[in-house]
Formats: sequence, C-alpha cells, structure tokens
Amino acid sequence: MNKPVIRVGIIGAGNVGSALVQLLGDSSRNEALLDAATGPFELVGIGVHDLNKRRKGVPKELLTADVKSLVERDDLDILVELVGGIKPARIYIETALRRGVSVVTANKSLMAECGTELAQLAHQNGCDLFYEAAVGGGIPILRALRTSLAGERITRVMGIVNGTTNFILTKMSSEGSSFETALKEAQSLGYAEADPSADVEGFDAAAKVQILSSLAFGTELSGEEITREGITGVRSVDVEFARRSGYVIKLLGVAERIAKSGISRRAHPAMIPMEHPLASVHGAMNAVFVEGERSGPLMWLGQGAGGEPTATAVLGDLLDAIRNRVSGRHNVPFSVDRTLHSVPTGELESVFYISIDVLDKPGVLAAVAGIFGDNGVSIQSMEQSGFGDEARLSFLTHMAVTDHVANTVKDLSTHRSVDSVGACIRVIDGGTK
Amino acid sequence: MNKPVIRVGIIGAGNVGSALVQLLGDSSRNEALLDAATGPFELVGIGVHDLNKRRKGVPKELLTADVKSLVERDDLDILVELVGGIKPARIYIETALRRGVSVVTANKSLMAECGTELAQLAHQNGCDLFYEAAVGGGIPILRALRTSLAGERITRVMGIVNGTTNFILTKMSSEGSSFETALKEAQSLGYAEADPSADVEGFDAAAKVQILSSLAFGTELSGEEITREGITGVRSVDVEFARRSGYVIKLLGVAERIAKSGISRRAHPAMIPMEHPLASVHGAMNAVFVEGERSGPLMWLGQGAGGEPTATAVLGDLLDAIRNRVSGRHNVPFSVDRTLHSVPTGELESVFYISIDVLDKPGVLAAVAGIFGDNGVSIQSMEQSGFGDEARLSFLTHMAVTDHVANTVKDLSTHRSVDSVGACIRVIDGGTK
Repeated sequence: MNKPVIRVGIIGAGNVGSALVQLLGDSSRNEALLDAATGPFELVGIGVHDLNKRRKGVPKELLTADVKSLVERDDLDILVELVGGIKPARIYIETALRRGVSVVTANKSLMAECGTELAQLAHQNGCDLFYEAAVGGGIPILRALRTSLAGERITRVMGIVNGTTNFILTKMSSEGSSFETALKEAQSLGYAEADPSADVEGFDAAAKVQILSSLAFGTELSGEEITREGITGVRSVDVEFARRSGYVIKLLGVAERIAKSGISRRAHPAMIPMEHPLASVHGAMNAVFVEGERSGPLMWLGQGAGGEPTATAVLGDLLDAIRNRVSGRHNVPFSVDRTLHSVPTGELESVFYISIDVLDKPGVLAAVAGIFGDNGVSIQSMEQSGFGDEARLSFLTHMAVTDHVANTVKDLSTHRSVDSVGACIRVIDGGTK
Repeated sequence: MNKPVIRVGIIGAGNVGSALVQLLGDSSRNEALLDAATGPFELVGIGVHDLNKRRKGVPKELLTADVKSLVERDDLDILVELVGGIKPARIYIETALRRGVSVVTANKSLMAECGTELAQLAHQNGCDLFYEAAVGGGIPILRALRTSLAGERITRVMGIVNGTTNFILTKMSSEGSSFETALKEAQSLGYAEADPSADVEGFDAAAKVQILSSLAFGTELSGEEITREGITGVRSVDVEFARRSGYVIKLLGVAERIAKSGISRRAHPAMIPMEHPLASVHGAMNAVFVEGERSGPLMWLGQGAGGEPTATAVLGDLLDAIRNRVSGRHNVPFSVDRTLHSVPTGELESVFYISIDVLDKPGVLAAVAGIFGDNGVSIQSMEQSGFGDEARLSFLTHMAVTDHVANTVKDLSTHRSVDSVGACIRVIDGGTK
C-alpha cells in the first residue's frame, strides 16, 4: 500500500522552530521518525519574518517570507505555528483550520485567550489542534491529561510551570539572594526577559493554569482572567522563615475542584512542605502535580523551557497529527463542562503566612492579635524577630477564609503600630501521604 | 450518526479488576467516560475462577466462571486481562488477538516473556494490545514513551519500579531499620508477599525494565534474562554510609544506550545523589526518570501499585482501545531495532561502593589496597569504622570496569585479613544538571 506523503509547514524559526527543523532534518533519525509517524512526511516550507537572519541547521531553500501563501498552500496537511503572541498567529491558525489543515502550536497565550473556539474550529473542519508545548516545555503533561487520565476524575492540579520564577526562588532559597539580585542573575543567564513582568507577575503561569484546567476539568479557554499574584513581593526573610518552618516558597499554578461543581484557578506564590514532591523541583525545572480520585498523586517533571526540550514536545504532537492524517481521523477536542462555575478566590480557605514590620513597643502584639481576631482569623503560631524599629512579627494562621485574611491585612496596614505588611502567602498542605 | 456499541469483557476480578468494574459502573462518571471513549460501550461479562467470592461493587449478574466462552464471544470487541501470570493468561490473550479482539492487560511477566510476539499477533489481526498498567501502576509512562517521545532519541531510563523494595529501603533509611525488620513491616502492611523473592530479588523490577526498554529503545520482549541483583544484601551500615556521603540507596531498573548500538538492561541496588529527583521518591511510590538527547531529563512519579491507581491506568488503555475500535483503526506496535546488541554488564564502567569487614591489624589496608590496584580498580575514598574484630573499611572507587570490581571482590573475599565483603553497590551519577 502506498501511503500519501503528509506535507508540513512551519511558521516561526526562533529557538523552538530551529530546533524542530534540525530534528526533522537529522537523517540518522529518519527511519525512527517515519516509523513513529507511520508514514512519510515532508517539510515543505518555513515561514519567517526576516529571510536573512542566521539560523543554524535551517535549510535556506525552505525559508519563505510569504507566510500567508505557505499557510494557504493547497497541498498543506499540517501547520506548525511557532510565531507566538496573539496576532498574527491567530489569523494563521484560523486560516489553516478553516481549510482543514491540522495545527500544532506552542502558543500558550493564544490558547488561553481563545482555545475553546480554536478547538471547536478544528473539530468542525475535521482536523487536529495540538499544543503540548504550550505548558511545561518538554514535559508531556497535556497528552497524559487528554488520554491516560481521560477516564479519571481529577481533583487538583498544581504546577511549577514558570522556570524563570522557579530559578529566582531557588536562588533566593539556596543562596539567600534578594529578589532583585536573583532576577538580575536570571536575566544575565537568559532565563528572564529585560521586561520580566510576564514571568514574575504570574501572567505566564496563569495562562498555563488555564490550559491545564481545561484538560483536567473541562473549563473554558476564552480569555477569562484568573486570580494572579506574582513573586515581586517575596523577600529573603520570607524565604528564610519558610525554610526554618519546613517549607519552601514556589510560584504555583493551581486548578482545583471545590465541592461538587466549583473550580478555582489561581497562580500565586505558596509555601509548600519540604517533603512534598514539588518542593524538590529546583532551578529552571518545571513540574506538574496531579491528584485524582482513584489514581492518587502523580507528578511530571522536566525542562519547562529551552528550544530543544520544547521542540521534542512539538515533535510528539506533529507525529500524532501525521498519524491521524494518515488514518483519516482527528482527535475530539476537550469537552467543556458547562455545569462548572468559578469559585471566587476570596471564598476559599487556606492557611496563610503573614509577616508585618512593627514598632517594638508594649501592647503591639495584643493590638495586632486583636485585628486578626476581629476579622475571624485564628493564629496558629507567631514568631518575633528583630528589635526596635526593625521588629518583625511572622504569623501562621489556622485555616482561614481568604477574604477575612485580606481584611486583616488591610486593617493591619493602617494600624498605627504597624510599619508595613511584608508578606501574605498561602501555605499548601502536604501532598503524598 | 449511530455509533456501534463496543463490547468489553474483563477476566480477573481481584484488586485491580474490582476497582475497574466499580469505575465503569459509577453512573456519575458515565458521561465523561462515554465522551472520553467517543462512543458507547458495554461491559458484557467478568470472567472469574470462583463465582462465590465476595467482591464489593462487582455486579453478580455479569460474573461467569466460563472464561473460555467469554473470551470467545463472537461479539466481543475488547478483552481486559487482569488474571496475571503466564498460564492461562497467555492462552486467553492469544485467543482474543487471533479473533481480532483488542486486549488491555496489566500483565508484566507475560509481556516481558513474549511481548514482541503478542504485539505482532495484535498487529497482524488488526487490533490493539495495550499494557500501561504493567509498569508503574497508575503512572502513565508507557503511553508517553510510545506517543509523546516517539520522535525522541532516549539515552537512559532509570526507574524505581518496585514499591515493596522502595518501602523497605525507605524504612531502612529513615528509621535505621534492618532489612529483616523493614521486610516484616512491609509484609504486615500488605506491601510484600509472604514469599517476597519476586520483589526483593529484583525479578519484578527486571521485568519492568524490559518493558520500558522495549518502548524506549526497541529491544525485544522475548523472555531474555537481564542482569539482576536484589536488595537482600543491603545492610543498615550501607544505608548509613550512603546518607553520610550524600546518597540514598534505591533499587533501580536501568536501561541505557552504550555507544552507538549497545544497550544495557539491569535491575540492582544503587547509590544515587540526594539531589537527584529519584532520591526523594519515598515509600511505596514509583518513579521513572528518562533522559533524552533533546528533551533533557524527564520524570514521572506516582503510585506504583494498588487496585485503584492501577485501574485508572487500565481504564486509560481501555478508552484508547475503544476510540480506536470506533474509528476502525489500531496502533502500530513498538518496532524492534535489530541493530541493537546487549552489552555484557561486566564490561560497563561505574563508580562502586565496597564495604569489607576486616581484622584491624597493621598492614591490612596496604594489603587490601593492593588487591584493588592489582585488579585495575582505583580508589576514590576510604573510611574505616569500628576496631578490632569489628573493623570495617568502606571504599568508593573511581570509575571502574564491573568485571574488574567483581574480581577485586573475589580476591578480597579470600584474603586472610578479610572477614567478609559486606556490600558492593553501584553509585549512579547526578541527574538534572
């Protein structure tokens, strides 16, 4: 039987795109790739903005600056979108899908923005939309959620899904660096952008939480904002307090079921117990921890960024798309569960760590404790450090309603004995019992 | 479009089988399951040996003791084999596959024994053979190897794939228990069998290494014996030496590429650095650590045993098999790479930890060191503990050829100043750099 040749176009030849082209062009891998794809495929073109940029391992004759024509080629079977951003990536992807061309993308922002719509568009046109590389770089977590765990009722997904912030927090923890010093080091190593806000303010993690949640729970991908706190407020003293108390501070992306039909999605720093599997995820590594009703805890760990690891995730999707194409089928997209509703973060309960700078004089602790009590927040433990103008009170609360804690912080910050509220960070329970 | 109903038969209703039947019968999950399967399916029968055994949540009317007739039902689409062992499971599976019935199994021994043959039989008859639950219980590692990583050149797979031995070694490490005490506790908790040899002698881990290796590298599943050492010789003093030196001792299953076309497959205890992700896999948890040329290090962690976690892995396979059935296709089995050859373990290099009990008298160290030197094994560090009749020398070698180390141990054990050789354990390098 003669199998048809599947024609693949790539747009974008940055780190990931170049690594992918090199992988596909590595002749020593050819047989294994053809085998994995169950049939022959051909890279027909690579759409780029600037034809003259040097790109190692990318054949010049395949480059084209006419991206539109590549996307609209009549014989195109699969488009790999590695341009990133919303516009013009969205237009390219929509054009391809409308023409029945399967799409593989690594575009987390776009998927978080309009993934539901794009997935439906793919389904209506009988083609695939895969985006494994959008979360966790080379970690094959999305395919696991949509295949291996398709029959499992997942209760919580928690991820260290931003390598930049994990690098910064690891530096702060292992070397006692300040946030600023650690950020500068991340920037000089190329882990952080000149404008680091997408990472350190939690935007990147939030988009990834939305994608994980859509596959784990069936929530929508429609640009909805979710609760987001960054790590710019995390200080060395907080990291040190965490360490002394048996915790580490990580920026976590969390999506979890609340009661029968509630869902909470958030990205924020959290203190997690040192014995939790996520606690030993260091540096720029990423990990996703999944808890299911029957499966128990599961964790995936790997390199969350970098051209080559991310390219292997794209390649896995590409092979899947080729296999489907060869056998004339496409995957059914994740189904949206319309019975779910978002539970406001303010209603959730958690243990909190709160650290305040106070004037060290008689009666301060009583006044501060009174504010906690008035807001219905019960204190589990308190530690004073420093003296005089430098005095600091660090509290761990019992389980408390987030809104009550927010009110406590507000009242604390305006109290005359309180200089400033330094930190208010959630404490996440242990994982693998 | 009216989709055909896919008919599923299960044989075996032990822990995993019962958990699976309960999952399938849970009406609150029905819609999600049908959706994940992309079509209706029906459980038509559950073959068991003893009809009268109490099985919670398993409908009596589906039970049959006539397993042969269930397997040979004309309308059967998928057979789930959870009987275990070689015979009669093999006959049931072969019968089903010959009739074009897809098979989902959790049977690691059978897959290690004749997986290549069974996979070919499935392919020839246009049906599927899935066995995710055979390795790592609820951890979806096999599907990841055959899909997400299909295009990646994997260089090494290392797994903690036996929960019983990991429980025992964790107890020895955290509580200083002896092997015997830890084994008894494992038995009383139901983690270890009355005859624990399949676990503690490494047979179970070895079978899992063979399955992982077949998917990672394309080695055969044809009952070939691989290098296997158990943990019965691991003593408290070894665990303690490891801890002091920054290592933990784990029973590792290893499959790795050696040079261009060599493969080494082994199961043995190993000292791994505490900062390695596998080092923090505690108790009965399992984990598989995969290194790829481009993907970098990846790790999967989860519950390696237990009815419910394992049932979720079986369910993932079952849904895959149903989806394929609905769309009239089947997966291509792993391809065997006939250019690969097994590298004899004796030729491999490793750092070794060797501990010997000696008579504490002048000249002993010189004599012992001489034996190392005569065999071409260079010493990295030495530590003496105890005195007189209780003296013990603990060595870490530099990288050394395994055969040379074996000769060293042989010569040591017959030397007049040496009481006994207590341990000879490989030291594995750090992982995520």
